Amino acid sequence: MDLLNWLGLAGQRAVIVHHDDLGSLWAMNAAYQRLPYATGAVMMPTMWAAACLGLRADADLGVHITLNSEFAHHRWRPLTQGASLRDAFGYAWPTLDAAWANLQADEAEAEMRAQIDAALAIGIDVTHIDTHMGAVFRPDLAAVYLRVAQAYRVPAFVPDSASVPGLWIPDAWKPELERVFAAGPLPRLGIIDGYGQPPAARTGWTLATVAGLAPGVYHFMHHAMIPGDETQSLRDAATRLADFAAFTDPGVQAALGGEVLLTYRELRDRLRAAGIL
Amino acid sequence: MDLLNWLGLAGQRAVIVHHDDLGSLWAMNAAYQRLPYATGAVMMPTMWAAACLGLRADADLGVHITLNSEFAHHRWRPLTQGASLRDAFGYAWPTLDAAWANLQADEAEAEMRAQIDAALAIGIDVTHIDTHMGAVFRPDLAAVYLRVAQAYRVPAFVPDSASVPGLWIPDAWKPELERVFAAGPLPRLGIIDGYGQPPAARTGWTLATVAGLAPGVYHFMHHAMIPGDETQSLRDAATRLADFAAFTDPGVQAALGGEVLLTYRELRDRLRAAGIL
Repeated sequence: MDLLNWLGLAGQRAVIVHHDDLGSLWAMNAAYQRLPYATGAVMMPTMWAAACLGLRADADLGVHITLNSEFAHHRWRPLTQGASLRDAFGYAWPTLDAAWANLQADEAEAEMRAQIDAALAIGIDVTHIDTHMGAVFRPDLAAVYLRVAQAYRVPAFVPDSASVPGLWIPDAWKPELERVFAAGPLPRLGIIDGYGQPPAARTGWTLATVAGLAPGVYHFMHHAMIPGDETQSLRDAATRLADFAAFTDPGVQAALGGEVLLTYRELRDRLRAAGIL
Repeated sequence: MDLLNWLGLAGQRAVIVHHDDLGSLWAMNAAYQRLPYATGAVMMPTMWAAACLGLRADADLGVHITLNSEFAHHRWRPLTQGASLRDAFGYAWPTLDAAWANLQADEAEAEMRAQIDAALAIGIDVTHIDTHMGAVFRPDLAAVYLRVAQAYRVPAFVPDSASVPGLWIPDAWKPELERVFAAGPLPRLGIIDGYGQPPAARTGWTLATVAGLAPGVYHFMHHAMIPGDETQSLRDAATRLADFAAFTDPGVQAALGGEVLLTYRELRDRLRAAGIL
């Protein structure tokens, strides 16, 4: 589908500013509460997931499907018991490679469903699902991910290309992954992802990126975090703090204010109303 | 057994300064790292449990058996799948009453064992087990708790009386609980617990309590936490900060320095060597 036209936004730039990794740290939730952007996704296996509810009245929250646990000092465990979901310590896999070498699709599906069920159980109006570090993009897992999204009648984040830089998808998988993405009814979005940009240049990069957008619908992912003692152990703390600085920058906020700011709730409700979900 | 005599400490005051709730917050772990007392117990269902390893070379760590999840904003889930272990949201029970009304002893035993196994798996030399908020003190669960301690050959924290203030044990259970405690071979310790003291008076209370101790072996529990943004949502933050202030107080440290500072590792190893564990 031509999503932009279908939304009645031909020629415009529609942006979903998307806060990743909610629940993983108090400082991530605090950043979400302070920024003017309502869309984000919660990692349900984390300790602060329950706190995401009630952070803001306009919350537009999805489930950040989590199949790996990449930090050394704060770790989380799968919600379900599948042996293929966990390392020798019972935590979700520490690396994407380990996750991809081990995950069984049936156990991963049970875990994806359990994470969505857990979000619904605590009262989150789940507007979408997306994927922590792209762990669901092994092609057979991607098919599961899309099927689960349809079962719950929520959009899944699906990039408009499997070859976008930063998705960490092995080249060998891309043709099959494109077939999986193309086979489903869900719309695909452009990705904007500054994660790999140098922290010091993040605000400037964000300004330039927004200014240069072609017409389209974009999922602009970020990992904004406020400063705090407990965040010092994160290897990518500087990146997360730079995201917070960028999205609190008046110039960035003004530039985004000139675009159509879309939410996943709007997208979900339109897709449901049209019978696509 | 007369533990004090058995340890060769007749007439002395032997104190295990015990840091509760490790793993539950970065700020709890940071306090453990900064204080001069090596003994504490880790809540394995939490996100920062893995970080407890390596905080200090002299670590004397046990497993803080956790069957409830009492905070509103940061919550944890059981490691095992027993339905009696969890509330409608999948978290451990929010109150002791709910836990006691629902926990099945067989599922609680599986969870206790899983928590100890998880600690051993990440490399913790488990020196003891104890109990978060006394949730194991329903008499049938106490029997399980003592049996599990023996199975793993570690001491379990067993108070010298079921009637100590602050243990939250219903009066109706105390006679049966005394029988359970008395039936096992594990030594019982005096409890010192300042949790219910006003935060402003904590340091003075600690000084007076140490000065007034009768000869004996004591488990001196505390919940020291350093200040930090993420700790503000805790309803008992003032109590935890006051514990940190008390145990960093030079007068308290000097008073404790005049007593025999025991560790659970010493106790465990003596009990193992004697064939009691």
